[in-house]
Amino acid sequence: MKALRYQDQELSVKDVPRPDTDGEALVRVRLSGICNTDLEIARGYAGFTGTLGHEFVGVIEELSTARANVDKQMATGQRVVGEINAGCDHCTLCQSGDSRHCPNRTVLGIVGRDGAHAEFLKLPLVNLLPVPPEISDEEAVFTEPLAAACGILERVLIAKDTKVTVIGDGKLGLLCAQVLGTTGAAVTLIGKHENKLRIARERNLETMLSSDAARRNRQFDVVVEASGSAQGFGVAVDLLRPRGILVLKSTFHGGTEIDAARIVVDEISVVGSRCGRFAPALKLLQTGAIDVNHLISEEFKLADGVRAMARASDSGVMKILLRP
Amino acid sequence: MKALRYQDQELSVKDVPRPDTDGEALVRVRLSGICNTDLEIARGYAGFTGTLGHEFVGVIEELSTARANVDKQMATGQRVVGEINAGCDHCTLCQSGDSRHCPNRTVLGIVGRDGAHAEFLKLPLVNLLPVPPEISDEEAVFTEPLAAACGILERVLIAKDTKVTVIGDGKLGLLCAQVLGTTGAAVTLIGKHENKLRIARERNLETMLSSDAARRNRQFDVVVEASGSAQGFGVAVDLLRPRGILVLKSTFHGGTEIDAARIVVDEISVVGSRCGRFAPALKLLQTGAIDVNHLISEEFKLADGVRAMARASDSGVMKILLRP
Repeated sequence: MKALRYQDQELSVKDVPRPDTDGEALVRVRLSGICNTDLEIARGYAGFTGTLGHEFVGVIEELSTARANVDKQMATGQRVVGEINAGCDHCTLCQSGDSRHCPNRTVLGIVGRDGAHAEFLKLPLVNLLPVPPEISDEEAVFTEPLAAACGILERVLIAKDTKVTVIGDGKLGLLCAQVLGTTGAAVTLIGKHENKLRIARERNLETMLSSDAARRNRQFDVVVEASGSAQGFGVAVDLLRPRGILVLKSTFHGGTEIDAARIVVDEISVVGSRCGRFAPALKLLQTGAIDVNHLISEEFKLADGVRAMARASDSGVMKILLRP
Repeated sequence: MKALRYQDQELSVKDVPRPDTDGEALVRVRLSGICNTDLEIARGYAGFTGTLGHEFVGVIEELSTARANVDKQMATGQRVVGEINAGCDHCTLCQSGDSRHCPNRTVLGIVGRDGAHAEFLKLPLVNLLPVPPEISDEEAVFTEPLAAACGILERVLIAKDTKVTVIGDGKLGLLCAQVLGTTGAAVTLIGKHENKLRIARERNLETMLSSDAARRNRQFDVVVEASGSAQGFGVAVDLLRPRGILVLKSTFHGGTEIDAARIVVDEISVVGSRCGRFAPALKLLQTGAIDVNHLISEEFKLADGVRAMARASDSGVMKILLRP
């Protein structure tokens, strides 16, 4: 099968054997999405080697017989998305149901496990969730990043009167702003691109150009940093009221210089947020509460994966999809 | 009157006029304590110019007649300690009762207000709290740093089964560890000085040498960074379990390099904590729940303030007191 791989510090589409399922489910990928994390891995971040990709929608191709009866919904042919962290099942975190933070976990296309930019992938059956028929493939492929946006609500309490701003009008920022908007809170999206901010305004979110942001300094209860830029940290702290909460949503390579004294003096909380559960994200897609269709820039064939990755890193481009 | 002042980038004891009370209370200082913040101000941190010091116990010398009847306890001659932040009384934060974060606040001996290493100081009457007779002057002078330690409990929920560690066996760390111990939680103090760790063990706290800390990596729910060292940040993150909470208690000058990706991937929270309310601290001193007497290294006359500051910055020295 074809797979978009990063190995020997090189990105290429290769012919590789189908995954050996080894008791896991084999999924035929229908569509996968390129995430900024893929771009960072291809720059050497995290030292991952293998098939890239962790956003996908697919169809169950093969179930190990031992596990086929776990859930009647999960038959061959079922359309699925899949949680990307696979825990060891044995540590205290896994035993408490939190395999997302298992220290021995593998992560689809990120840590120790081949990913989704391929014709087939494997994942433990427990990771897979059926996709309701109302959700198109093009929408379902956003389940993982949308779940990551929903993950903010696992970490921070957002009430109707919470003043929230999201920094970054890329696809992650647009998803975060929309998800936070579903709480009824007043959400402001801050970004540099008029055409992207427009997408937020069409969903009744307030927007602001980065160049105007300083005017709102010290006014927000919660600031979500989703710009992927190390400078975003300082801008975010400036926007917070004392005792406000800064949610760090984007990972970027290398260290960040922070003014720790500022965090202490203003008693700010900095809250890291990575993944989220898939069920709430599927619900939001099913009810049409979130617009993901405007976040798609282009679709490439998997065979053109290298070109697709280059395109995904062009300025202003949003989601690039790959079809095997 | 005599006052220990930092001005023109120089530290000296000067003869200056008594503070012009201007409607505030005049307090005759009986004892003041040198804090690491004083040492950092004397190195140019925060750009403060004036009389240093924010830890004190004193006696009310003079009340403006207009305010004398606010509280019958507050007569001339009353022994008091005082909250160090004086708000503007007008902004939304002050109106909501949070003058500690008023953007226009002055702070005793730190921001725009002469401090406590002097024969007299002034503070708004509302800032002063009477000291119960069970508390000696030598104990009462610890009310401010003890309140700062208690401030952690305003920011983070510590339950009986929370695994907590405090990094730093200086006076702040020893106060934090003791305060956290009052919750019933298992508290481990990490430090470099056997003689200081012994003080914690005598209060039934577990202790560990810094060189052994790595053995407990990823085991703590809450880590309090009270070492005042920029490296403390990385050590603290290593000790935390996923989704753990790092409390930043010490301010230090300059930027801190952090691995933001680590905060995101392990979904850690970093919580800044500065001051705390005085009432809980006075209660702890009154009931003898906290040992502060073993934290006193030496007492100097205010006239010897410059020498006292030098002594306070010697390695291994804990609280230095000044008596006017």
